[in-house]
Amino acid sequence: MTFDITSTDPASAARTGTLTTDHGPIETPIFMPVGTAGTVKAVHQRELETDINAEIILGNTYHLYLRPGLDVLEGAGGLHGFNGWKRPILTDSGGYQVYSLSNTRKIKEEGVTFRSHIDGSKHQFTPEVVMDIQRTIGADIIMAFDECTPYPCDYDYARRSMHMTHRWLDRCIARFDATPDKYGYRQYLFPIVQGSTYKDLRRESAEVIASKERTGNAIGGLAVGEPAEEMYETIAIVNEILPRHKPRYLMGVGTPANILESIALGVDMFDCVMPTRNARHGILFTTEGVINIKNEKWSRDFSSIDSGLDHYASNFYSKAYLRHLIRSEEILGAQIASLHNLAFYLWLVRQARLHIRAGDYVSWKNEMVVRLMQRL
Amino acid sequence: MTFDITSTDPASAARTGTLTTDHGPIETPIFMPVGTAGTVKAVHQRELETDINAEIILGNTYHLYLRPGLDVLEGAGGLHGFNGWKRPILTDSGGYQVYSLSNTRKIKEEGVTFRSHIDGSKHQFTPEVVMDIQRTIGADIIMAFDECTPYPCDYDYARRSMHMTHRWLDRCIARFDATPDKYGYRQYLFPIVQGSTYKDLRRESAEVIASKERTGNAIGGLAVGEPAEEMYETIAIVNEILPRHKPRYLMGVGTPANILESIALGVDMFDCVMPTRNARHGILFTTEGVINIKNEKWSRDFSSIDSGLDHYASNFYSKAYLRHLIRSEEILGAQIASLHNLAFYLWLVRQARLHIRAGDYVSWKNEMVVRLMQRL
Ligand SMILES: [Zn+2]
Ligand SMILES: [Zn+2]
Repeated sequence: MTFDITSTDPASAARTGTLTTDHGPIETPIFMPVGTAGTVKAVHQRELETDINAEIILGNTYHLYLRPGLDVLEGAGGLHGFNGWKRPILTDSGGYQVYSLSNTRKIKEEGVTFRSHIDGSKHQFTPEVVMDIQRTIGADIIMAFDECTPYPCDYDYARRSMHMTHRWLDRCIARFDATPDKYGYRQYLFPIVQGSTYKDLRRESAEVIASKERTGNAIGGLAVGEPAEEMYETIAIVNEILPRHKPRYLMGVGTPANILESIALGVDMFDCVMPTRNARHGILFTTEGVINIKNEKWSRDFSSIDSGLDHYASNFYSKAYLRHLIRSEEILGAQIASLHNLAFYLWLVRQARLHIRAGDYVSWKNEMVVRLMQRL
Repeated sequence: MTFDITSTDPASAARTGTLTTDHGPIETPIFMPVGTAGTVKAVHQRELETDINAEIILGNTYHLYLRPGLDVLEGAGGLHGFNGWKRPILTDSGGYQVYSLSNTRKIKEEGVTFRSHIDGSKHQFTPEVVMDIQRTIGADIIMAFDECTPYPCDYDYARRSMHMTHRWLDRCIARFDATPDKYGYRQYLFPIVQGSTYKDLRRESAEVIASKERTGNAIGGLAVGEPAEEMYETIAIVNEILPRHKPRYLMGVGTPANILESIALGVDMFDCVMPTRNARHGILFTTEGVINIKNEKWSRDFSSIDSGLDHYASNFYSKAYLRHLIRSEEILGAQIASLHNLAFYLWLVRQARLHIRAGDYVSWKNEMVVRLMQRL
């Protein structure tokens, strides 16, 4: 994997780059659609390629491990073979889902024991197990096993948790480096900065993570309920320490404004369920602002969903039709809205790249943050 | 509307034809995907055109009248303008849904009063109202308002109901002929043969319907629980009376075998929710037989869904992947299975046309009925 920084913004830490994997290049800054259980919800694989122009998607280790399971994924030649997606895939470590979805989880130094939210069966995730699972899923980018602390989190818990995450990281690295790439293409491990919202902990964690000298680095434990300003401050502190010449991945973030602000702070990669989850509830991100399509005001608006975007779902269908579908709980409503919101997010990061290259990123970003977040 | 019979089968009543509407031609025999609330569930409009090759779709009057409502549809220039479908649309009369979905319905000579299954609001459908609604929806083909009797149905009820359906038909015709086409293209009214499974009633009804000399004729009240043989006998009796030179539409039918057998009896048009409803439950119709994709046996079958069909969903995705999606209740599972099943149904009627033209329809049909209905 190579990461070439192709331009830098004179007025901020924003930069464009190309991350090259064996499954093809990724232009950064990039947004990665979330494909939890091996599917980006309500979106066909060809739509991801042609309408959305996704360059990389996510898979969730917790979900894929429980269903379809590793034997099926291995038989298919990994997730790429299973779902037909030909471009890069990143998997999370499963930790976040264990904490949020499973029952009776117990976190110990060895790892985490939990019960499946599907059938109640008992499982253990350790740093070693999670490296092996992600190898078998066949991710191009594999995330370290960490504990993502909640917000608010008291200082002592955050500090102890961060130190355990660092010890887990050493075990992840040892296991990862001792095991071969599974399917003939290169796999890479990204460590994760933790430390809650405590500046000294974040600095310490960023130093530790940077010292591991992996191919790329991630920032975890943000967008868990803290004020946006506190998130931006934390990112700024961490990004001063994380090496400039390696990709920086801000996990689970966020709104269009969050993404634009974080790009200005030097973040290169993003993922979030927001575009697809909000889509299913009728919340649309458009080039003019945010639309709650369920509102009565759209009932007779026969204009296209977003004429500012140049692709099928946003142009072909009207607001009134989509409103009808979402209100009627028709599957096509989720399809159209998901396709639109994801196309919007990918448009947003492409626009960000254009403006970083043009040298006017900050002024463009400041205008867009206001425009994109207004309620229409 | 013109209907040109382009070939006839020497060994059966099967024929091919071209039904020409202002929204384009329909090759018959044809299967019409059901778009209940203005959407063929889980299928994009462009997929209907390019992957499924649908030539006409259905809309349900009951659903569309309740939601989005006539003012919205009229504002959009009819259902074509609302959902963007450019080819012909047929609407049912709403009667069947009133009987099956709504609460506290009361059938009287004047019409049917009922409460909405959505919000409990009270409404009345009369033959006149239903003609006006379908004009406003903008259907190319409008169905007469009838009572669809259940199975079994005692003789006296079936006879009285049929006579009321005939009186309602006269009111439908009077209203339809007294009102103009709504959006600049021609609209046509099809009357419906009723009479339950009683041969004398079916003959009487077919005579009455034929005597109205409308553009096309429909057979209703079948596939409501009676044995298939009884359905075929009824179709045969009715089709001896319905004029040969006009299209015959068998409403709400059915399995691939039902369709092939009915084509042999001279039916030209079909609709059914089976391909889409079964798809959502993981039942696939394929060129080799019927698959319950939820079965364990498909869990590691990485072959495509149906290599006998030449389009995206059937070729791109594997059985194992689709099984995973359906078991996980992922929306993409419903999308893939619906796309596949509908593509299969349209493939089936295209194949039927080829074999009618080739003159070997009956032998091909007899082989296919066995093959297509076997459980894989
Ligand atoms: Zn998020
Ligand atoms: Zn049916």
